[in-house]
Amino acid sequence: MTPSAVLESALYVTDLAAAEAFYGGVLGLERIVRVEGRHVFFRCGEGVVLLFDAEATRQPPRPDAKLPVPPHGAVGQGHLCFAASAAEIDRWKAHFEAEGIAVEADFEWPSGGRSIYIRDPSGNSLEFAEPRIWGFR
Amino acid sequence: MTPSAVLESALYVTDLAAAEAFYGGVLGLERIVRVEGRHVFFRCGEGVVLLFDAEATRQPPRPDAKLPVPPHGAVGQGHLCFAASAAEIDRWKAHFEAEGIAVEADFEWPSGGRSIYIRDPSGNSLEFAEPRIWGFR
Repeated sequence: MTPSAVLESALYVTDLAAAEAFYGGVLGLERIVRVEGRHVFFRCGEGVVLLFDAEATRQPPRPDAKLPVPPHGAVGQGHLCFAASAAEIDRWKAHFEAEGIAVEADFEWPSGGRSIYIRDPSGNSLEFAEPRIWGFR
Repeated sequence: MTPSAVLESALYVTDLAAAEAFYGGVLGLERIVRVEGRHVFFRCGEGVVLLFDAEATRQPPRPDAKLPVPPHGAVGQGHLCFAASAAEIDRWKAHFEAEGIAVEADFEWPSGGRSIYIRDPSGNSLEFAEPRIWGFR
């Protein structure tokens, strides 16, 4: 038995409003839910991108909580990579340049496939890469 | 334009060897690559789970690097959720109990669907949840 897929990928952000504007606006992801001061979640394909304020999620659930979600929360620059075709990477790069968002790196992997990297407003490293860099498709 | 999928989800670990044994052994994921002292990566469905030692990934690339991967690295307990059917969650729970791994939480969401939570050896919060908690399938 092994997991069939990742359902939720999480990043921690220092400014939830800026994160919501970026992931919903610049990246165009569909927002699922926001809980003020704690999180904002977005749909992405068959998965969900979770953006948390670690100050809030590090609090343990109350003893009487009906949904005793275990605490978690990290500090520092996380990483997440979105799938993109070669043509989409070209379009993302033009989009980021038009939005004044620096593309921090842009290269081809030795075994084939391109990655570009930007930062979200909290400094998380976001990559857009062709799935073939991992042998997919 | 919006990303079609998450390709890579990352967690930071304090002991790469323990992480490799856990994700490869207990969870049964297929290891793609290990770079001693820096990372170990696993395939999971159409995506990849990246486990990093943040001490290593926080180092900026050398000026002459051919693959100038931007630095990143977080400290603290991260979160990741694997997709699992209701029957698989039953099997995972039995598996974790057999392995002596505490199931920290186990509940049904108000709108339907079950989640269970464990910790990886570095304390990251791992969830196994039915995709229908987000309206999938």
